[in-house]
Amino acid sequence: MDRSPGERTDRSAGERTPKQDRSRATRRRLLEAAVACLAERGWAGSTVSVVAERAGVSRGAAQHHFPTREDLFTAAVEYVAEERSGAIRALFPQGAAGDRRAVVAALVDLYTGPLFRAALHLWVAASNEEQLRPRVTELEARVGRETHRIAVDLLGADESRPGARETVQGLLDMARGLGLANLLTDDQGRREKVVAQWTALVESALRD
Amino acid sequence: MDRSPGERTDRSAGERTPKQDRSRATRRRLLEAAVACLAERGWAGSTVSVVAERAGVSRGAAQHHFPTREDLFTAAVEYVAEERSGAIRALFPQGAAGDRRAVVAALVDLYTGPLFRAALHLWVAASNEEQLRPRVTELEARVGRETHRIAVDLLGADESRPGARETVQGLLDMARGLGLANLLTDDQGRREKVVAQWTALVESALRD
Repeated sequence: MDRSPGERTDRSAGERTPKQDRSRATRRRLLEAAVACLAERGWAGSTVSVVAERAGVSRGAAQHHFPTREDLFTAAVEYVAEERSGAIRALFPQGAAGDRRAVVAALVDLYTGPLFRAALHLWVAASNEEQLRPRVTELEARVGRETHRIAVDLLGADESRPGARETVQGLLDMARGLGLANLLTDDQGRREKVVAQWTALVESALRD
Repeated sequence: MDRSPGERTDRSAGERTPKQDRSRATRRRLLEAAVACLAERGWAGSTVSVVAERAGVSRGAAQHHFPTREDLFTAAVEYVAEERSGAIRALFPQGAAGDRRAVVAALVDLYTGPLFRAALHLWVAASNEEQLRPRVTELEARVGRETHRIAVDLLGADESRPGARETVQGLLDMARGLGLANLLTDDQGRREKVVAQWTALVESALRD
């Protein structure tokens, strides 16, 4: 989870040098700063320079890691999404044997924090910017598939049964809609009640 | 449905003059052009001038109707949302006696067209622009309440029963999430299956 797909092919863990560790730490700081920046300022306010300053990294070093603005922000959303997915899996090592309510709550939380806010800014920008669109479309598909896989695993959904796949998909669509409802106002009170009711509906649909 | 709340207080229908009719038609052209512009170009690309040109109206006339950019675009999203709500109610005059599948499909359609796209651009812009934020927050709450009321009526949900309110809210959150999933790619095939499954779950939840 702490390496990007691009790095994976360059070297194995055994060959790490202190210089490579520093480079990886710099990369990580840039990615985290990029997501925070996107969440707070939106796409228009997010440039490589702003992120480099926030991360305490020189602009040249930032551009060494990420030659373009598009590289930096798509990599950032992907990195943080992978971190969050990993964290959810780690929270429920027992998978379906665990508490379904807690699993649904953790899945919904994926859509209400700074990561979702950052991803939303990126999606909306991509809908009007041709340079960004294909990359974000591809990223969204990849992150969406991974989230679906986690949800199916942790909820113990048997996708060979009719409707099970769509039940889980609709739950994640609802979580995405709840994230959007939380964009301008704190929607937590309402959200908790909706999630409790939909958890009951999902449980009964997956059990029947 | 063809008058804005602001106009309602100025005069009654009986007093309309040809000049007032022209003024109303101009206003309407501006509002429709504003939503189309917002959907296609996003907030950054949407100015009063661009909308005036698209509507075939002078910039001065546009500013007479809408002194600020914020006035124009919030009024536009509200106007089109009211038009769409009215159209849905008209489609199902028999309300709950009608076809629930068709009602759910029509509700979901509210979130997949240019109106949702325009509203999404406005919401996301409002999350970073202090001038826009309070107005859009208030608009979103008003449109959300009205959509909820329509959904409850047309689905024949009895909100005095535990969980019924949250079942309908979750359905609208899911529709919002489906709208977001449709932003960058045509998601119709997947959406139809999810909607079919969740229509069945919602039906059984409201019936039990």
